[in-house]
Amino acid sequence: MNPSPEPDRSALRVNPDRLMERLDALARIGAISGTAGCARLALTDEDRAGRDLVVTWMRDLGLDVTVDGIGNVTGVMPSAGDAAPVMTGSHIDTVATGGRYDGNLGVLAGLEVIETVRTAGIEPKRPLAVGFFTDEEGARFPPDMLGSLVYVGGLGLEDALQIEGIDGAVVGDELDRIGYRGIEPCPGAVPHAFIELHIEQGPVLEAEGRHIGAVTGVQGISWTSITITGQSNHAGTTPMSMRRDPAVAAARITTFVHDLANELGHPQVGTVGKIDLRPNLVNVVPQSATMTVDLRNTDDATLQDAERRLRQLLDEMTAPGDLSIDTTTLARFEPVVFDPAVVDLVAAVAESHGHDPLRIPSGAGHDAQMLARVCRTGMIFVPSHDGLSHNPAEHTDPDDLEAGANVLLHTMLHLAEED
Amino acid sequence: MNPSPEPDRSALRVNPDRLMERLDALARIGAISGTAGCARLALTDEDRAGRDLVVTWMRDLGLDVTVDGIGNVTGVMPSAGDAAPVMTGSHIDTVATGGRYDGNLGVLAGLEVIETVRTAGIEPKRPLAVGFFTDEEGARFPPDMLGSLVYVGGLGLEDALQIEGIDGAVVGDELDRIGYRGIEPCPGAVPHAFIELHIEQGPVLEAEGRHIGAVTGVQGISWTSITITGQSNHAGTTPMSMRRDPAVAAARITTFVHDLANELGHPQVGTVGKIDLRPNLVNVVPQSATMTVDLRNTDDATLQDAERRLRQLLDEMTAPGDLSIDTTTLARFEPVVFDPAVVDLVAAVAESHGHDPLRIPSGAGHDAQMLARVCRTGMIFVPSHDGLSHNPAEHTDPDDLEAGANVLLHTMLHLAEED
Repeated sequence: MNPSPEPDRSALRVNPDRLMERLDALARIGAISGTAGCARLALTDEDRAGRDLVVTWMRDLGLDVTVDGIGNVTGVMPSAGDAAPVMTGSHIDTVATGGRYDGNLGVLAGLEVIETVRTAGIEPKRPLAVGFFTDEEGARFPPDMLGSLVYVGGLGLEDALQIEGIDGAVVGDELDRIGYRGIEPCPGAVPHAFIELHIEQGPVLEAEGRHIGAVTGVQGISWTSITITGQSNHAGTTPMSMRRDPAVAAARITTFVHDLANELGHPQVGTVGKIDLRPNLVNVVPQSATMTVDLRNTDDATLQDAERRLRQLLDEMTAPGDLSIDTTTLARFEPVVFDPAVVDLVAAVAESHGHDPLRIPSGAGHDAQMLARVCRTGMIFVPSHDGLSHNPAEHTDPDDLEAGANVLLHTMLHLAEED
Repeated sequence: MNPSPEPDRSALRVNPDRLMERLDALARIGAISGTAGCARLALTDEDRAGRDLVVTWMRDLGLDVTVDGIGNVTGVMPSAGDAAPVMTGSHIDTVATGGRYDGNLGVLAGLEVIETVRTAGIEPKRPLAVGFFTDEEGARFPPDMLGSLVYVGGLGLEDALQIEGIDGAVVGDELDRIGYRGIEPCPGAVPHAFIELHIEQGPVLEAEGRHIGAVTGVQGISWTSITITGQSNHAGTTPMSMRRDPAVAAARITTFVHDLANELGHPQVGTVGKIDLRPNLVNVVPQSATMTVDLRNTDDATLQDAERRLRQLLDEMTAPGDLSIDTTTLARFEPVVFDPAVVDLVAAVAESHGHDPLRIPSGAGHDAQMLARVCRTGMIFVPSHDGLSHNPAEHTDPDDLEAGANVLLHTMLHLAEED
């Protein structure tokens, strides 16, 4: 307890150099040689080294650090009462060709916010907390956002511990191996509110010349794998009229998905990112084409309409009987809508800092969407240069990192004064 | 010289059991376990074993066997005069997943024709010859039809001997290793005429219910590799209006090629058999798409028109500046037209045997198209079940094999009486 009067809270700002030093130090673990990027797949030795560093920083700040059964780590400012904390956080695992800010920014900005508050001698009504969640990327163990999903009770711990990774490793074994299978129970304690700072991972803020995004929610996601089977034939000797060509069908689907997203209008997006022809030879009409369709929208009714129209197209294509089409749902998440008051708060704080915030949905998944199941939640975006992410060339200007951390600071301070 | 009167030549027929026994025996060399297919890539140990067997049969028939500098093997009936022979033949190398009749039929039917003629005591005015050409498939050493190309002087022997294969082996070294670098000069002796029996490798004869094809020529071939470069982006966070998606462009080209071939009409064909997206992930707008376009026609003017219209499309697609497109010509062969009199002769012989021959262009390349550069040339096709080829499931009915060999027999006998 600091008996001296509090400083003017509204003038409080994070220390950008300290934030950047921590970002640089964490980025050196698993650094991808010759790039600014990182490879710290979940529960690998690199992930352990990154975790150890962040936990050290949490302890240096005097936080109460706990680790739960799925390896989620939370650091809470010590407090006298039992008020639920205002929590921030994100993840520190990366994809194999990851950038240095995706996830890491949200965790280290959270640390910086708490250090700023403590250094200023401020005692918020509610304690502040910062966490990092296990395997947000899903690049080693499916599904993505695994740790936060277990944190909110969306998946049982025992099931999660048995998940096998792309390399055959098992979540529980790897948690034991790196020393991060903790004793804190899952589901975890419900915070008063959750607010996550993250890079946009898209081009919109930059294109609009904005520096802060007040994230309104997360798009619903529909992933479908489509396998079209036709008849492999010699490309020279088979007349057009006798062909059953799955590559032509895949092209039709690709064009349809593109046109459909344009017709349904923003924020609907549709992507064919993966096509595999078999046998994939210049002079052979393919036997089969396997492709993926990624549809997303913040409005579930429109997303369902897009899915229905895609199914209709596939039905039309198989009607003549010369092609067979099998589909598998790879993922289906309903849209998440963040708490409107929290979104408004983020926007108001950004405006008070001289920004012109953009209300924007997230096209990517984030731990915040899991926390939104159990508490009032929002997110703050800062711009991604060229919209690049999951790429060592991922970049956000230092001024934007700082601006985002300051918006996080004041959003958390506001939330911490709520009853 | 047999002083007894000749039998009725028109009644002469091959011995189908002997033909089938030789086809079976050759197919046992390099047999693909559990299938009817063969793997005898050019100049491998399996190819050597196949060559040794066929040469033994040639010698058993009393043929004069010569081997040239590129390993082409020719067996000629001994004759008193110096008249150029009527030649038949094909190849005995296969692709890695080959059938038992592709190429082999033309060689062994040629042997059978000569044995039939000799056994009957017939002395044609011109000697008959049968050969097999090195590396017709091009599956180990590019280009395909290598041996026949060198035979007709289309590629210098020294250049051919230095060609490197997909496994790093060199043609000259492998010829030495298997003992098939012969002393007969290249280019080889020009025959009076050349006639090749081959399976169709396409579905047309079977679909039309025909058993003999009188091959009119070989389609011209145009192969282009197209690389479209756009901008890789997150599939969730990148609005449709900000995308530069090469997969959508690849789809447009695929559809265009299909529609163009249909519009130009038979025998134009157009195929996109290979598409490679990078990075080829469900949730990433691809950075690039590399694809192939295979265009074929028997009429070079129409083929050139198809090529021009494809180029025009690519120009239109790059005009807005959001995509770049690079093209590489992988192959370009002009159409080959076989000697009309030889085509008519094949058709007439087939009709005299009770068949309803179909005049049909070849969509695939054959040694005969090389021989057509130096002598009057034709081909005989027999049906391929389901049009399958380059596949262990390749199949032709025994009756059709026999019928094709008998048409070959009488076509050669007719040509052998020409001045």
